[in-house]
Amino acid sequence: MNRSELVNQIRLKESFLCIGLDAELTQLPAHLLDFSDPVFEFNRQIIDATKNYCVAYKPNLAFYEALGKKGWESLERTVDYIPKTHFTIADAKRGDIGNTSRLYAKAFFETLNFDAVTVAPYMGEDSVKPFLEFKDKWAIVLALTSNKGAQDFQIPGDLYKHILRKAQTWGTPENLMFVVGATQADKLKEIRELVPDHFLLVPGVGAQGGDLTEVAGSALNKDVGLLINASRSIIYAGKEMDFAEKAATESISMQRLMKIAMTTKS
Amino acid sequence: MNRSELVNQIRLKESFLCIGLDAELTQLPAHLLDFSDPVFEFNRQIIDATKNYCVAYKPNLAFYEALGKKGWESLERTVDYIPKTHFTIADAKRGDIGNTSRLYAKAFFETLNFDAVTVAPYMGEDSVKPFLEFKDKWAIVLALTSNKGAQDFQIPGDLYKHILRKAQTWGTPENLMFVVGATQADKLKEIRELVPDHFLLVPGVGAQGGDLTEVAGSALNKDVGLLINASRSIIYAGKEMDFAEKAATESISMQRLMKIAMTTKS
Repeated sequence: MNRSELVNQIRLKESFLCIGLDAELTQLPAHLLDFSDPVFEFNRQIIDATKNYCVAYKPNLAFYEALGKKGWESLERTVDYIPKTHFTIADAKRGDIGNTSRLYAKAFFETLNFDAVTVAPYMGEDSVKPFLEFKDKWAIVLALTSNKGAQDFQIPGDLYKHILRKAQTWGTPENLMFVVGATQADKLKEIRELVPDHFLLVPGVGAQGGDLTEVAGSALNKDVGLLINASRSIIYAGKEMDFAEKAATESISMQRLMKIAMTTKS
Repeated sequence: MNRSELVNQIRLKESFLCIGLDAELTQLPAHLLDFSDPVFEFNRQIIDATKNYCVAYKPNLAFYEALGKKGWESLERTVDYIPKTHFTIADAKRGDIGNTSRLYAKAFFETLNFDAVTVAPYMGEDSVKPFLEFKDKWAIVLALTSNKGAQDFQIPGDLYKHILRKAQTWGTPENLMFVVGATQADKLKEIRELVPDHFLLVPGVGAQGGDLTEVAGSALNKDVGLLINASRSIIYAGKEMDFAEKAATESISMQRLMKIAMTTKS
């Protein structure tokens, strides 16, 4: 999916919500365990219930790899099931030497047909560039993450700012986004000044405690330029037969806040 | 595998060679393509031919993920086939927020039963710690990598030294190693002073141009404390029917240099 298609979907739905499809077998509603592929069935019902209120889905690879070959099958079925109107992100945080990153790019963009993959920046330019060489595909580079460990190396010496400055020269706002955690709202305005045009993928709203309206106020740009992700707060909003309805209700309430933020900004 | 078992294997074989099982379908000897699982058949023959000269095998996940579900099957079969006398490393360069890293650890240590996994440090302590909580399992944290991109963020401001200092407080020499590229031989002595006891996993000898004897001279410690990895220079030493013999020959010549280096040092 290219940038203008993504922006169109956002305007159409008045939503920049991304839903994290991070199902753990131990967390699923019990009745789903009778299905031959409980994780896919869970995702399918979540997608059906929420697709009108979000523009993107983001499976995190760890949740699938923990289940081995069967998890990989659930992931393939899930990606195939997501409507083509939705932007798909492999939250994989990959990054390796050039010839290896090229194969990760192939895995996510060709074998699995994702639109985007999250990439860890530590190994530098040649570890990121292979993800930028596929038409209408995206690399989403970690800048400032939502977890406590962001304090260890990202914030001291403003490393994340250095990464934002340097990495934006490797791609364009048409094929490169950045991850900025919602729990870092105080730094979002400055980040937006450093990368005025790029989309930001913002996890950390919901279970991790970030505030949607605060994030939107600091980081919306002329093309919206934001994907705010929620995972657990949506997919585990309910744990019974009506889990998908509950997920829809939670998505709608986030979408309404997004609509207000978009209207206020424009 | 615990540290003393690993050190015993190294002493027994007079080798600290790790072989990277990074098979690409397009690079395999043509006659293997008739097998139902060419990648596993390639790995099986490489393992049979080289196991007396190395102490560890390191499949890089990218090469398997590029093949989708079938690649995951080849990986599972490969890990099962590696003799229990050999240390197994999932070269995956993972790292995510705590609840997610925990699932990656489960994927590699339980679902796949690897001894170790490579971990990217960018997300800090809570992204690494979950890999350190499994008995006789190891996290191998990226410090200074072998690629050109190491110049972008690792070397400026001595970030890699800061990571070595900080990350060694998260684990012990019994469950934590560091990746240091062989192409960074000029920095190895200083790195060895910073982490005198930890094992170092050193890629970059062979196809990437690092020098084995130089690396060993700078970084061997009292328990050897080194795993030097070669991938392409061994597994693609030959491309015909005799590829496994050629891989053995290449492994033997590296093992001989290692034996000399160990003898010189002790």
